[in-house]
Amino acid sequence: MERWLHQLRSGGLTMRVPDIADIRQAASRLAGVAVRTPLLQFPTLDARIDGRVLIKPEVLQRTGSFKFRGAWNRLSQLSMAERRAGVVAWSSGNHAQGVAAAARILDIPALIVMPKDAPRLKIERTEGLGAKVIFYDRINEDREAIGRRIAADRGAVIVPPYDDPDIVAGQGTVGLEIAEDAGRLGVALDAVLVPAGGGGLAAGTALALGAAMSDAKVWCVEPQGFDDHARSLAAGQRLGNEVGRQSFCDALLAPMPGEFTFAINAARLAGGVAVSDAEVAAAMRFAFEELKLVVEPGGAVALAAVLAGRFDAAGKSVVLILSGGNADPAPFCRTIAG
Amino acid sequence: MERWLHQLRSGGLTMRVPDIADIRQAASRLAGVAVRTPLLQFPTLDARIDGRVLIKPEVLQRTGSFKFRGAWNRLSQLSMAERRAGVVAWSSGNHAQGVAAAARILDIPALIVMPKDAPRLKIERTEGLGAKVIFYDRINEDREAIGRRIAADRGAVIVPPYDDPDIVAGQGTVGLEIAEDAGRLGVALDAVLVPAGGGGLAAGTALALGAAMSDAKVWCVEPQGFDDHARSLAAGQRLGNEVGRQSFCDALLAPMPGEFTFAINAARLAGGVAVSDAEVAAAMRFAFEELKLVVEPGGAVALAAVLAGRFDAAGKSVVLILSGGNADPAPFCRTIAG
Repeated sequence: MERWLHQLRSGGLTMRVPDIADIRQAASRLAGVAVRTPLLQFPTLDARIDGRVLIKPEVLQRTGSFKFRGAWNRLSQLSMAERRAGVVAWSSGNHAQGVAAAARILDIPALIVMPKDAPRLKIERTEGLGAKVIFYDRINEDREAIGRRIAADRGAVIVPPYDDPDIVAGQGTVGLEIAEDAGRLGVALDAVLVPAGGGGLAAGTALALGAAMSDAKVWCVEPQGFDDHARSLAAGQRLGNEVGRQSFCDALLAPMPGEFTFAINAARLAGGVAVSDAEVAAAMRFAFEELKLVVEPGGAVALAAVLAGRFDAAGKSVVLILSGGNADPAPFCRTIAG
Repeated sequence: MERWLHQLRSGGLTMRVPDIADIRQAASRLAGVAVRTPLLQFPTLDARIDGRVLIKPEVLQRTGSFKFRGAWNRLSQLSMAERRAGVVAWSSGNHAQGVAAAARILDIPALIVMPKDAPRLKIERTEGLGAKVIFYDRINEDREAIGRRIAADRGAVIVPPYDDPDIVAGQGTVGLEIAEDAGRLGVALDAVLVPAGGGGLAAGTALALGAAMSDAKVWCVEPQGFDDHARSLAAGQRLGNEVGRQSFCDALLAPMPGEFTFAINAARLAGGVAVSDAEVAAAMRFAFEELKLVVEPGGAVALAAVLAGRFDAAGKSVVLILSGGNADPAPFCRTIAG
């Protein structure tokens, strides 16, 4: 098992890439606190794709997205002094809820920096979980700078959304469960498709699957205009997204791949696929009508990729991660009404 | 294991009550064809109820409801001559899709009698699965008479929605899976709440759980105005619903308990609970927002019963069956918008 250190340029921190032991430890920490989501099969989906398509529904996870996994893995390891000092995070809304939920269980004060145009459900849930929310303007302000300043003022611990070994190890439990459940079903996986914003879920999943001796290739899926991973993977270096692009996949609008996560993903992902908002909307409708699952735009990109033929899953065994389901009712309904 | 015969007054048929061997056989027939739905846990639901509430999501079943189980168990046992003659069924829309899906896989012509005010999704799906649909008027016509006449004309096999041992045994696989998965989780169940229309799912579930040596009490849940099971169980005899009552739980509007199913349910159910349409609507909203599951009105009554406090689940370990998710987008959206 390779064990190497990654030197983060920003801040000069040294971070160790999690190995399978770290991910297994994360799984033990999560047991009984997080939901062990199932691996679902849908005959209609298999027939539609003419392949074997398994769904990993992280919409069923505590807080409605996979983000609780990483947040719990990080927060549950804080010292008592750190817990008293509190945590600070920035997030479009799913990491926000993950951190807030973990903080509430552990009785840690939490402050989250969120875009003021985040879905109402995400804001209400984060506040409902007892976190203090500070809003910023996605276009004109730097959420990370705001978060770092507040954390420095309070001596609070920063819980990054993806560039952190404990966060990546926590998200990696998704991959661990996929490997276990696919094995139990006797399915040799060809590919796992993972929605990517900052790349933490992709990195964790790829680490876990690689360690499970699985031959499954891990692909990341992004909205068009925010295909920074796809282009960065192709170029072999981190590239940002063009400023001013729009997508309704609010969870996947990170400006570029994470530095730490990209060091992992560059070595381990097979590549990236991009889908249009219209394809994502069609996938959300399909999930509503055929899968009976509520999936938010950013959570539906992997499903969109196979339904729209951006990823050819015919004749293959593929897992699609539905990473989140925190959609506001009104826009959700406009979307599924077509 | 008790094995007794039940003499159906209508038609003078003799039907044997399924035992656990019949239900296990049904499970073998269903393996690889039906979906083995998981037993889901939701920390938010547990916290809200202050109990251990497990969800059996039959919304994830092939055709979006449990009905495929019974239909497949019946149709897969037909002789080649019977298959050629075709099948006839009557249904508000979920049994319709179950029969149509099983018939399509087995290459059997299927004709279904459906109310003309059934949800569009249910009609379209039934037709989309290759069945011929004949419409009737729920208020002024007798669907069973129409179906029996057509079946007699064609020499086709009738596939009843609930009063049939193979149908009951097929639905009983839901109870079998609940017992297995609760056992695996180490949960001793206090109760299982089952939506009831004709009572086939309740009967099958109660038979399976009784045989599993489970102490779980099985309760049926119905819409107010259609609480024929609750009143019949209390009275010890089959009672019908008052004519002219309304509910948006289109799957649960059977006029009275099935004769065969009631003979089973009278001996095995703990009782019945009724919920209002407003309570069902609130449960559908809860399922959308917190469980990320799409549940149709009739499928949400058990969840409504615990959320509205009609069934006190505090301190108990309870399974709620979400029996179907075939909701039309427009009325679904009006419901979750509140």
